[in-house]
Amino acid sequence: MNKGKLQSDDISDLGEFGLIRHLTSDLVSRNESTIKGVGDDAAVLGFGGRKVVISTDMLAEGVHFNLVYTPLKHLGYKAAVVNFSDVYAMNAQPRQLLVSMALSAKFRLSMVEEIYSGIRLACEQYGVDLVGGDTTSSMTGLVLSLTVVGDAADEELVYRSGAGINDLICVSGNLGGAYIGLQVLERERVMFEKHQDMQPALMGYDYVLERQLKPEARKDIIALLKELGIKPTSMIDISDGLSSELMHICEQSGRGCKIYSDKVPVHEETRRISQEFGIDPLIAALNGGEDYELLFTIPVSQFDQVGNRQEISIIGHVVEAAEGARMIDSHGSVVALQAQGWNALG
Amino acid sequence: MNKGKLQSDDISDLGEFGLIRHLTSDLVSRNESTIKGVGDDAAVLGFGGRKVVISTDMLAEGVHFNLVYTPLKHLGYKAAVVNFSDVYAMNAQPRQLLVSMALSAKFRLSMVEEIYSGIRLACEQYGVDLVGGDTTSSMTGLVLSLTVVGDAADEELVYRSGAGINDLICVSGNLGGAYIGLQVLERERVMFEKHQDMQPALMGYDYVLERQLKPEARKDIIALLKELGIKPTSMIDISDGLSSELMHICEQSGRGCKIYSDKVPVHEETRRISQEFGIDPLIAALNGGEDYELLFTIPVSQFDQVGNRQEISIIGHVVEAAEGARMIDSHGSVVALQAQGWNALG
Repeated sequence: MNKGKLQSDDISDLGEFGLIRHLTSDLVSRNESTIKGVGDDAAVLGFGGRKVVISTDMLAEGVHFNLVYTPLKHLGYKAAVVNFSDVYAMNAQPRQLLVSMALSAKFRLSMVEEIYSGIRLACEQYGVDLVGGDTTSSMTGLVLSLTVVGDAADEELVYRSGAGINDLICVSGNLGGAYIGLQVLERERVMFEKHQDMQPALMGYDYVLERQLKPEARKDIIALLKELGIKPTSMIDISDGLSSELMHICEQSGRGCKIYSDKVPVHEETRRISQEFGIDPLIAALNGGEDYELLFTIPVSQFDQVGNRQEISIIGHVVEAAEGARMIDSHGSVVALQAQGWNALG
Repeated sequence: MNKGKLQSDDISDLGEFGLIRHLTSDLVSRNESTIKGVGDDAAVLGFGGRKVVISTDMLAEGVHFNLVYTPLKHLGYKAAVVNFSDVYAMNAQPRQLLVSMALSAKFRLSMVEEIYSGIRLACEQYGVDLVGGDTTSSMTGLVLSLTVVGDAADEELVYRSGAGINDLICVSGNLGGAYIGLQVLERERVMFEKHQDMQPALMGYDYVLERQLKPEARKDIIALLKELGIKPTSMIDISDGLSSELMHICEQSGRGCKIYSDKVPVHEETRRISQEFGIDPLIAALNGGEDYELLFTIPVSQFDQVGNRQEISIIGHVVEAAEGARMIDSHGSVVALQAQGWNALG
């Protein structure tokens, strides 16, 4: 390991991406079947037929979910869907799922069944087979680790690295809802802790709550793009917020980007409830995460095919790396995007 | 889920295998590429070329390992090797590894690097590529979840289900050492907690400590069998003790077995140190687990090829299911094997 570069032994100085990069920076492939390792939504493997994509995701109680307001069935469903989303982001189809769980002593069989019923519902809805896993005890909270396997023909695969200059930057659906839904749940949790006799006031928040608790992977967008004969030049799913995902595409494609804040799709419910919390909905969209929409780039020549599609928004275009990753805000000012948040350039 | 069958909501009434069976009993495959799902050492997938095997394993601090006496590098090495062992047990070659970790706040970067250095060493030694993973925080202890992908030609794959009547039951290496090694470590931990100024007394225990802390997967046995032109009729790796693994093979092959206690291979160091702890080394071999040796069956006609191989012991043979899973002990008495322990038949 190249420890020389690091000044500190504190993991938080690196951040999640920095940590993975640090730990895997000098990996060498030993097998022909390893086509693409660390660094995209999924790894790509080849065993002589269709390409195999594989991705894994870990969710820990108290970090990724709070059992106070997360129904166990929803938790299972979401854990599975989040993994499927990684496979769609490669323009591949999820096929198999492996599920590992570490359960603390508080878990009853019926609770585990609830989690599994959510996982199985997701598998049913997305046509995926549950083929394995591991169940073990944990000293404390619940930890879920899911691994999904998908497949695609070689020529169908889309990586993060193919964005070309002038390509249009597209986003499916709308952003920020999952983050605002989380704010609603957190507010109710705090209220409940103070006043245990109160009923949670969740009426009228259905849309953002569903975005947070029961997200869907955009299988339909992958199917639509195929139907339209469009193969994106690059693609990623939006799990950590638009800003951070745009940076990944820029970095791995060796490009910059220019997006327009008023083109970033935000649902009217998200906008309305954002105001209630005094949150700029644009910030929720850029940094909130967990929307599991697809962010992808297409050549300008394909504008006509997607330009009038309600489920796809064109939010900007790809530029030279030297121009950086920038956003034009509603006043026409240029701001630099950052993995979390952005800085005014003055 | 078929809840009707269960009387209790307590997970421990089911046990680990019972729980997985309960949660996955009525699964239906939706994809052609799903060849074999839950129930063997690994799932088997087919995407048009070589068969893909995949297996996942989760290890939790305080349950599977104790950081008081487990060096982090060894922990990483073992976590990887344990997964590779599942792939060899399918008569396949491990090719890729995905690693997810949930880290509590006590973990420094250098500690994570230590774990990774062990994982990477194992990958190097076994020719496996690290292709992905996830790193996240946990509210408490360390949880590791590893997924391994391997490949084999269709005709090479060996399942747990193929044991035929009269097939010879073979075990690689020797058994019980890892369990006895764990006893040594536990004794030192207890001593250390009482007398913090004492140095651990681990001299003279090298063999069993290595069996516990740095096990190896039997890649060499898979290579040897290939060289000898032997394809086992069934195979499993010994992670939970010989008894339990024999039961898996019997159950999935629809057979019974008869083994001889004096044929069960135990290393002389394991035997010596067992006495120190007042443990019957045979119990350590049958129920101890974590030896990661291979248990397999071969047709009687292949006796000549393995009969004189020091690294392979023939411990008995496969019988009709109606005869059950039995062991002839050193006094010639017949005892019934159980997943954990055994009962005298009188």
